[in-house]
Amino acid sequence: MQLYNYFRSSASYRVRIALALKGLAYDYMPVHLVKREHQAESYAAVSASRLVPLLRDGDASLTQSMAIIEYLDETHPQPPLLPADALGRARVRALAQDVACEIHPLNNLRVLRYLVHDLKLGEDDKNRWYRHWVETGLEVVERQIADHPATGRFCHGDTPGLADCVLVPQIFNAQRFDCRLDHVPTVMRVFEACMQLDAFDKTQPSACPDAE
Amino acid sequence: MQLYNYFRSSASYRVRIALALKGLAYDYMPVHLVKREHQAESYAAVSASRLVPLLRDGDASLTQSMAIIEYLDETHPQPPLLPADALGRARVRALAQDVACEIHPLNNLRVLRYLVHDLKLGEDDKNRWYRHWVETGLEVVERQIADHPATGRFCHGDTPGLADCVLVPQIFNAQRFDCRLDHVPTVMRVFEACMQLDAFDKTQPSACPDAE
Repeated sequence: MQLYNYFRSSASYRVRIALALKGLAYDYMPVHLVKREHQAESYAAVSASRLVPLLRDGDASLTQSMAIIEYLDETHPQPPLLPADALGRARVRALAQDVACEIHPLNNLRVLRYLVHDLKLGEDDKNRWYRHWVETGLEVVERQIADHPATGRFCHGDTPGLADCVLVPQIFNAQRFDCRLDHVPTVMRVFEACMQLDAFDKTQPSACPDAE
Repeated sequence: MQLYNYFRSSASYRVRIALALKGLAYDYMPVHLVKREHQAESYAAVSASRLVPLLRDGDASLTQSMAIIEYLDETHPQPPLLPADALGRARVRALAQDVACEIHPLNNLRVLRYLVHDLKLGEDDKNRWYRHWVETGLEVVERQIADHPATGRFCHGDTPGLADCVLVPQIFNAQRFDCRLDHVPTVMRVFEACMQLDAFDKTQPSACPDAE
Protein backbone atom coordinates (compact mmCIF):
# COMPACT_ATOMS: atom_id res chain seq x y z
CA MET A 1 0.00 0.00 0.00
CA GLN A 2 1.00 3.59 -0.56
CA LEU A 3 -0.32 6.45 1.53
CA TYR A 4 -0.22 9.86 -0.13
CA ASN A 5 -0.23 12.30 2.73
CA TYR A 6 1.27 15.32 4.44
CA PHE A 7 2.82 15.33 7.88
CA ARG A 8 0.67 18.19 9.14
CA SER A 9 -2.62 17.12 7.55
CA SER A 10 -4.74 15.87 10.39
CA ALA A 11 -6.89 13.78 8.06
CA SER A 12 -3.66 12.09 6.94
CA TYR A 13 -2.62 11.49 10.55
CA ARG A 14 -5.94 9.70 11.20
CA VAL A 15 -5.08 7.12 8.55
CA ARG A 16 -1.47 6.77 9.72
CA ILE A 17 -2.80 5.88 13.18
CA ALA A 18 -5.23 3.32 11.78
CA LEU A 19 -2.53 1.69 9.64
CA ALA A 20 -0.26 1.54 12.68
CA LEU A 21 -2.98 0.09 14.92
CA LYS A 22 -3.51 -2.61 12.30
CA GLY A 23 0.23 -3.21 11.98
CA LEU A 24 0.10 -2.59 8.23
CA ALA A 25 3.19 -1.51 6.31
CA TYR A 26 2.95 1.17 3.62
CA ASP A 27 5.04 3.48 1.51
CA TYR A 28 4.89 7.07 2.74
CA MET A 29 4.26 9.32 -0.27
CA PRO A 30 4.61 12.96 0.79
CA VAL A 31 2.41 15.61 -0.85
CA HIS A 32 3.34 19.09 0.25
CA LEU A 33 0.06 20.96 0.74
CA VAL A 34 1.61 24.32 1.51
CA LYS A 35 3.59 24.13 -1.73
CA ARG A 36 0.26 23.13 -3.38
CA GLU A 37 1.67 19.87 -4.69
CA HIS A 38 -1.85 18.39 -4.38
CA GLN A 39 -3.02 20.77 -7.11
CA ALA A 40 -0.22 19.85 -9.52
CA GLU A 41 -1.04 17.85 -12.63
CA SER A 42 1.20 15.03 -11.42
CA TYR A 43 -1.06 14.58 -8.39
CA ALA A 44 -4.26 14.93 -10.43
CA ALA A 45 -3.14 11.76 -12.21
CA VAL A 46 -3.09 10.01 -8.83
CA SER A 47 -6.18 11.56 -7.26
CA ALA A 48 -9.39 12.80 -8.87
CA SER A 49 -10.28 14.63 -5.65
CA ARG A 50 -6.78 16.18 -5.32
CA LEU A 51 -7.04 15.80 -1.58
CA VAL A 52 -4.86 13.97 0.90
CA PRO A 53 -4.90 11.39 2.31
CA LEU A 54 -5.17 8.92 -0.53
CA LEU A 55 -4.47 5.24 -0.03
CA ARG A 56 -3.47 3.02 -2.91
CA ASP A 57 -4.15 -0.65 -2.31
CA GLY A 58 -3.17 -2.60 -5.41
CA ASP A 59 -5.04 -0.97 -8.28
CA ALA A 60 -7.56 0.76 -6.04
CA SER A 61 -7.36 4.38 -4.92
CA LEU A 62 -9.22 5.30 -1.76
CA THR A 63 -9.99 8.77 -0.47
CA GLN A 64 -11.58 10.38 2.58
CA SER A 65 -9.92 9.38 5.82
CA MET A 66 -12.97 7.90 7.59
CA ALA A 67 -13.88 5.86 4.51
CA ILE A 68 -10.28 4.63 4.27
CA ILE A 69 -10.26 3.59 7.92
CA GLU A 70 -13.55 1.69 7.55
CA TYR A 71 -12.08 -0.03 4.48
CA LEU A 72 -8.97 -1.03 6.43
CA ASP A 73 -11.20 -2.33 9.21
CA GLU A 74 -13.21 -4.44 6.78
CA THR A 75 -10.22 -5.82 4.89
CA HIS A 76 -7.96 -6.29 7.94
CA PRO A 77 -10.39 -6.93 10.79
CA GLN A 78 -7.83 -7.37 13.58
CA PRO A 79 -7.68 -5.46 15.84
CA PRO A 80 -11.16 -4.01 15.20
CA LEU A 81 -11.48 -0.23 15.09
CA LEU A 82 -15.27 -0.33 15.34
CA PRO A 83 -17.37 -2.10 18.00
CA ALA A 84 -19.20 -5.33 17.21
CA ASP A 85 -22.71 -3.97 17.90
CA ALA A 86 -24.65 -1.59 15.66
CA LEU A 87 -25.33 0.93 18.43
CA GLY A 88 -21.69 0.99 19.42
CA ARG A 89 -20.64 1.47 15.82
CA ALA A 90 -23.13 4.31 15.47
CA ARG A 91 -21.71 5.97 18.59
CA VAL A 92 -18.11 5.67 17.40
CA ARG A 93 -18.93 6.92 13.91
CA ALA A 94 -20.89 9.84 15.33
CA LEU A 95 -18.00 10.84 17.59
CA ALA A 96 -15.61 10.67 14.65
CA GLN A 97 -18.01 12.78 12.59
CA ASP A 98 -18.38 15.29 15.43
CA VAL A 99 -14.74 16.09 14.69
CA ALA A 100 -14.52 15.34 10.98
CA CYS A 101 -17.77 17.08 9.96
CA GLU A 102 -18.10 19.82 12.58
CA ILE A 103 -14.60 20.98 13.55
CA HIS A 104 -11.89 20.06 11.10
CA PRO A 105 -13.55 21.27 7.84
CA LEU A 106 -13.65 24.80 9.20
CA ASN A 107 -9.97 24.87 9.99
CA ASN A 108 -8.22 23.21 7.13
CA LEU A 109 -5.64 24.91 5.02
CA ARG A 110 -7.80 25.98 2.09
CA VAL A 111 -10.39 27.54 4.41
CA LEU A 112 -7.75 29.49 6.32
CA ARG A 113 -6.37 30.62 2.97
CA TYR A 114 -9.80 31.85 1.89
CA LEU A 115 -10.21 33.77 5.14
CA VAL A 116 -6.88 35.52 4.68
CA HIS A 117 -6.67 35.96 0.90
CA ASP A 118 -10.30 36.40 -0.09
CA LEU A 119 -11.91 37.83 3.02
CA LYS A 120 -8.74 39.74 4.00
CA LEU A 121 -8.97 38.65 7.61
CA GLY A 122 -6.08 39.58 9.87
CA GLU A 123 -4.10 37.10 11.93
CA ASP A 124 -6.14 37.75 15.07
CA ASP A 125 -9.51 37.20 13.40
CA LYS A 126 -8.20 34.08 11.69
CA ASN A 127 -6.98 32.65 14.99
CA ARG A 128 -10.22 33.57 16.72
CA TRP A 129 -12.13 31.73 13.99
CA TYR A 130 -9.90 28.68 14.39
CA ARG A 131 -10.22 28.57 18.16
CA HIS A 132 -13.95 29.20 18.12
CA TRP A 133 -14.72 26.07 16.11
CA VAL A 134 -12.19 23.90 17.90
CA GLU A 135 -13.24 24.95 21.38
CA THR A 136 -17.00 24.76 20.82
CA GLY A 137 -16.68 21.59 18.74
CA LEU A 138 -14.59 19.75 21.32
CA GLU A 139 -17.12 20.77 23.96
CA VAL A 140 -19.73 18.81 21.98
CA VAL A 141 -17.42 15.78 22.02
CA GLU A 142 -16.78 16.24 25.74
CA ARG A 143 -20.51 16.28 26.52
CA GLN A 144 -20.92 12.99 24.72
CA ILE A 145 -18.05 11.08 26.29
CA ALA A 146 -17.99 12.50 29.84
CA ASP A 147 -19.94 10.20 32.17
CA HIS A 148 -21.10 8.03 29.29
CA PRO A 149 -21.14 4.36 30.31
CA ALA A 150 -19.53 3.27 27.02
CA THR A 151 -16.53 5.59 27.43
CA GLY A 152 -13.53 3.75 28.78
CA ARG A 153 -9.83 4.35 28.62
CA PHE A 154 -10.57 5.47 25.06
CA CYS A 155 -13.60 7.12 23.43
CA HIS A 156 -15.42 3.80 23.35
CA GLY A 157 -14.24 1.09 25.70
CA ASP A 158 -10.69 0.15 26.54
CA THR A 159 -9.27 -0.31 23.07
CA PRO A 160 -8.56 2.49 20.60
CA GLY A 161 -10.82 2.84 17.59
CA LEU A 162 -12.04 5.06 14.79
CA ALA A 163 -13.15 7.88 17.11
CA ASP A 164 -9.72 8.04 18.73
CA CYS A 165 -8.02 8.04 15.31
CA VAL A 166 -9.98 11.17 14.43
CA LEU A 167 -9.91 12.90 17.82
CA VAL A 168 -6.16 12.80 18.47
CA PRO A 169 -5.06 14.70 15.32
CA GLN A 170 -7.62 17.39 16.15
CA ILE A 171 -5.95 17.87 19.54
CA PHE A 172 -2.59 18.31 17.83
CA ASN A 173 -4.15 21.08 15.73
CA ALA A 174 -5.76 22.61 18.80
CA GLN A 175 -2.45 22.73 20.61
CA ARG A 176 -0.67 24.22 17.62
CA PHE A 177 -3.17 27.08 17.57
CA ASP A 178 -3.16 27.56 21.35
CA CYS A 179 -6.80 26.60 21.76
CA ARG A 180 -8.30 26.33 25.20
CA LEU A 181 -8.53 22.70 26.30
CA ASP A 182 -9.17 22.87 30.05
CA HIS A 183 -12.93 22.66 29.47
CA VAL A 184 -12.67 19.19 27.90
CA PRO A 185 -11.04 17.02 30.59
CA THR A 186 -12.40 13.70 29.32
CA VAL A 187 -11.22 14.47 25.79
CA MET A 188 -7.76 15.23 27.16
CA ARG A 189 -7.70 12.11 29.31
CA VAL A 190 -8.44 10.02 26.22
CA PHE A 191 -5.83 11.97 24.25
CA GLU A 192 -3.15 11.22 26.87
CA ALA A 193 -4.09 7.55 26.91
CA CYS A 194 -3.77 7.40 23.13
CA MET A 195 -0.40 9.11 23.10
CA GLN A 196 1.02 6.38 25.30
CA LEU A 197 0.57 3.99 22.38
CA ASP A 198 3.17 3.73 19.64
CA ALA A 199 0.47 3.76 16.95
CA PHE A 200 -0.40 7.34 17.89
CA ASP A 201 2.99 8.53 19.07
CA LYS A 202 5.19 7.29 16.24
CA THR A 203 2.89 8.54 13.48
CA GLN A 204 2.48 12.07 14.84
CA PRO A 205 3.34 14.98 12.54
CA SER A 206 6.81 15.64 13.94
CA ALA A 207 7.76 11.96 13.47
CA CYS A 208 6.91 11.93 9.74
CA PRO A 209 9.57 11.68 7.03
CA ASP A 210 8.40 14.99 5.53
CA ALA A 211 8.23 16.85 8.87
CA GLU A 212 9.78 20.31 8.85
CA MET B 1 -38.64 5.83 15.99
CA GLN B 2 -38.59 9.59 16.36
CA LEU B 3 -36.57 11.88 14.12
CA TYR B 4 -35.70 15.27 15.60
CA ASN B 5 -35.04 17.44 12.62
CA TYR B 6 -35.66 20.66 10.75
CA PHE B 7 -37.18 20.92 7.30
CA ARG B 8 -34.35 23.03 5.90
CA SER B 9 -31.46 21.17 7.59
CA SER B 10 -29.79 19.24 4.82
CA ALA B 11 -28.28 16.77 7.28
CA SER B 12 -31.85 16.08 8.46
CA TYR B 13 -33.02 15.61 4.88
CA ARG B 14 -30.34 12.94 4.34
CA VAL B 15 -31.85 10.86 7.11
CA ARG B 16 -35.43 11.44 5.95
CA ILE B 17 -34.42 10.03 2.53
CA ALA B 18 -32.77 6.98 4.09
CA LEU B 19 -35.80 6.27 6.28
CA ALA B 20 -38.06 6.58 3.24
CA LEU B 21 -35.85 4.32 1.09
CA LYS B 22 -36.06 1.73 3.87
CA GLY B 23 -39.81 2.21 4.18
CA LEU B 24 -39.50 2.95 7.90
CA ALA B 25 -42.16 4.94 9.74
CA TYR B 26 -41.18 7.58 12.30
CA ASP B 27 -42.54 10.50 14.26
CA TYR B 28 -41.41 13.83 12.85
CA MET B 29 -40.16 15.98 15.73
CA PRO B 30 -39.51 19.52 14.48
CA VAL B 31 -36.67 21.52 16.00
CA HIS B 32 -36.60 25.08 14.71
CA LEU B 33 -32.94 25.94 14.15
CA VAL B 34 -33.51 29.56 13.19
CA LYS B 35 -35.43 30.08 16.44
CA ARG B 36 -32.49 28.30 18.15
CA GLU B 37 -34.74 25.62 19.62
CA HIS B 38 -31.78 23.22 19.41
CA GLN B 39 -29.98 25.32 22.02
CA ALA B 40 -32.90 25.33 24.45
CA GLU B 41 -32.64 23.35 27.68
CA SER B 42 -35.56 21.18 26.60
CA TYR B 43 -33.55 19.97 23.61
CA ALA B 44 -30.36 19.56 25.64
CA ALA B 45 -32.28 16.91 27.57
CA VAL B 46 -32.84 15.05 24.30
CA SER B 47 -29.45 15.62 22.67
CA ALA B 48 -26.02 16.01 24.24
CA SER B 49 -24.68 17.35 20.95
CA ARG B 50 -27.61 19.77 20.51
CA LEU B 51 -27.50 19.16 16.79
CA VAL B 52 -30.11 17.85 14.40
CA PRO B 53 -30.81 15.32 13.12
CA LEU B 54 -31.19 13.01 16.09
CA LEU B 55 -32.89 9.65 15.77
CA ARG B 56 -34.43 7.95 18.76
CA ASP B 57 -34.79 4.20 18.35
CA GLY B 58 -36.25 2.74 21.53
CA ASP B 59 -33.98 3.94 24.33
CA ALA B 60 -31.11 4.81 22.01
CA SER B 61 -30.32 8.29 20.72
CA LEU B 62 -28.29 8.49 17.54
CA THR B 63 -26.62 11.54 16.09
CA GLN B 64 -24.69 12.50 12.97
CA SER B 65 -26.56 11.81 9.76
CA MET B 66 -24.06 9.46 8.09
CA ALA B 67 -23.71 7.42 11.29
CA ILE B 68 -27.51 7.23 11.56
CA ILE B 69 -27.84 6.06 7.96
CA GLU B 70 -25.20 3.36 8.45
CA TYR B 71 -27.06 2.26 11.60
CA LEU B 72 -30.33 2.05 9.69
CA ASP B 73 -28.56 0.05 6.99
CA GLU B 74 -27.20 -2.40 9.55
CA THR B 75 -30.44 -2.81 11.48
CA HIS B 76 -32.76 -2.80 8.45
CA PRO B 77 -30.61 -4.24 5.64
CA GLN B 78 -33.22 -4.09 2.86
CA PRO B 79 -32.87 -2.32 0.52
CA PRO B 80 -29.12 -1.86 1.11
CA LEU B 81 -27.75 1.69 1.02
CA LEU B 82 -24.15 0.53 0.79
CA PRO B 83 -22.64 -1.88 -1.76
CA ALA B 84 -21.76 -5.44 -0.79
CA ASP B 85 -18.02 -5.14 -1.52
CA ALA B 86 -15.47 -3.28 0.60
CA LEU B 87 -14.15 -1.19 -2.29
CA GLY B 88 -17.66 -0.17 -3.30
CA ARG B 89 -18.50 0.75 0.27
CA ALA B 90 -15.33 2.82 0.48
CA ARG B 91 -16.25 4.64 -2.72
CA VAL B 92 -19.79 5.41 -1.56
CA ARG B 93 -18.64 6.56 1.89
CA ALA B 94 -15.95 8.76 0.33
CA LEU B 95 -18.49 10.39 -2.01
CA ALA B 96 -20.81 11.04 0.92
CA GLN B 97 -17.90 12.51 2.88
CA ASP B 98 -16.88 14.67 -0.07
CA VAL B 99 -20.15 16.49 0.60
CA ALA B 100 -20.53 16.01 4.34
CA CYS B 101 -16.93 16.84 5.29
CA GLU B 102 -15.88 19.25 2.54
CA ILE B 103 -18.93 21.27 1.50
CA HIS B 104 -21.77 21.26 3.97
CA PRO B 105 -19.82 22.13 7.16
CA LEU B 106 -18.75 25.43 5.63
CA ASN B 107 -22.28 26.46 4.82
CA ASN B 108 -24.41 25.49 7.75
CA LEU B 109 -26.40 27.96 9.75
CA ARG B 110 -24.00 28.53 12.62
CA VAL B 111 -21.11 29.19 10.25
CA LEU B 112 -23.13 31.70 8.23
CA ARG B 113 -24.11 33.34 11.50
CA TYR B 114 -20.48 33.62 12.53
CA LEU B 115 -19.58 35.19 9.19
CA VAL B 116 -22.29 37.81 9.54
CA HIS B 117 -22.34 38.49 13.29
CA ASP B 118 -18.72 37.95 14.30
CA LEU B 119 -16.81 38.74 11.12
CA LYS B 120 -19.32 41.40 10.01
CA LEU B 121 -19.44 40.10 6.47
CA GLY B 122 -21.97 41.68 4.13
CA GLU B 123 -24.57 39.70 2.21
CA ASP B 124 -22.44 39.62 -0.97
CA ASP B 125 -19.35 38.25 0.76
CA LYS B 126 -21.46 35.70 2.61
CA ASN B 127 -23.05 34.50 -0.62
CA ARG B 128 -19.69 34.41 -2.37
CA TRP B 129 -18.35 32.24 0.48
CA TYR B 130 -21.34 29.91 0.21
CA ARG B 131 -21.08 29.52 -3.54
CA HIS B 132 -17.32 29.09 -3.52
CA TRP B 133 -17.43 25.98 -1.34
CA VAL B 134 -20.49 24.52 -3.03
CA GLU B 135 -19.20 25.05 -6.56
CA THR B 136 -15.64 23.87 -5.94
CA GLY B 137 -16.80 21.02 -3.72
CA LEU B 138 -19.33 19.70 -6.21
CA GLU B 139 -16.64 19.85 -8.88
CA VAL B 140 -14.66 17.35 -6.80
CA VAL B 141 -17.70 15.07 -6.69
CA GLU B 142 -18.22 15.50 -10.44
CA ARG B 143 -14.63 14.47 -11.20
CA GLN B 144 -15.14 11.30 -9.22
CA ILE B 145 -18.43 10.17 -10.71
CA ALA B 146 -18.11 11.36 -14.34
CA ASP B 147 -16.89 8.52 -16.53
CA HIS B 148 -16.35 6.25 -13.53
CA PRO B 149 -17.33 2.66 -14.35
CA ALA B 150 -19.15 2.23 -11.03
CA THR B 151 -21.40 5.25 -11.58
CA GLY B 152 -24.81 4.24 -12.86
CA ARG B 153 -28.18 5.85 -12.76
CA PHE B 154 -27.16 6.90 -9.26
CA CYS B 155 -23.77 7.73 -7.69
CA HIS B 156 -22.93 4.06 -7.43
CA GLY B 157 -24.83 1.65 -9.62
CA ASP B 158 -28.50 1.68 -10.46
CA THR B 159 -29.97 1.80 -6.97
CA PRO B 160 -29.87 4.82 -4.66
CA GLY B 161 -27.58 4.69 -1.64
CA LEU B 162 -25.76 6.63 1.05
CA ALA B 163 -23.94 8.91 -1.41
CA ASP B 164 -27.21 9.92 -3.06
CA CYS B 165 -28.82 10.56 0.34
CA VAL B 166 -26.06 13.07 1.07
CA LEU B 167 -25.69 14.58 -2.39
CA VAL B 168 -29.33 15.49 -3.08
CA PRO B 169 -29.85 17.78 -0.04
CA GLN B 170 -26.65 19.61 -0.99
CA ILE B 171 -28.13 20.37 -4.41
CA PHE B 172 -31.24 21.80 -2.76
CA ASN B 173 -28.96 24.13 -0.78
CA ALA B 174 -27.00 24.99 -3.91
CA GLN B 175 -30.17 25.94 -5.75
CA ARG B 176 -31.46 28.00 -2.84
CA PHE B 177 -28.26 30.07 -2.92
CA ASP B 178 -28.16 30.33 -6.73
CA CYS B 179 -24.94 28.39 -7.07
CA ARG B 180 -23.60 27.55 -10.48
CA LEU B 181 -24.38 23.94 -11.39
CA ASP B 182 -23.74 23.74 -15.13
CA HIS B 183 -20.17 22.54 -14.53
CA VAL B 184 -21.37 19.36 -12.79
CA PRO B 185 -23.56 17.57 -15.36
CA THR B 186 -23.16 14.08 -13.92
CA VAL B 187 -24.05 15.33 -10.45
CA MET B 188 -27.17 16.95 -11.87
CA ARG B 189 -28.11 13.86 -13.87
CA VAL B 190 -27.95 11.81 -10.65
CA PHE B 191 -29.92 14.49 -8.81
CA GLU B 192 -32.71 14.38 -11.42
CA ALA B 193 -32.82 10.58 -11.25
CA CYS B 194 -33.14 10.71 -7.48
CA MET B 195 -35.91 13.29 -7.56
CA GLN B 196 -38.03 10.95 -9.62
CA LEU B 197 -38.24 8.69 -6.59
CA ASP B 198 -40.79 9.28 -3.84
CA ALA B 199 -38.17 8.70 -1.14
CA PHE B 200 -36.36 11.85 -2.27
CA ASP B 201 -39.31 13.87 -3.52
CA LYS B 202 -41.74 13.43 -0.66
CA THR B 203 -39.16 14.14 2.06
CA GLN B 204 -37.81 17.34 0.52
CA PRO B 205 -37.82 20.49 2.65
CA SER B 206 -40.98 22.01 1.19
CA ALA B 207 -42.89 18.76 1.85
CA CYS B 208 -42.06 18.68 5.57
CA PRO B 209 -44.66 19.32 8.29
CA ASP B 210 -42.63 22.25 9.62
CA ALA B 211 -41.97 23.82 6.19
CA GLU B 212 -42.50 27.55 6.00
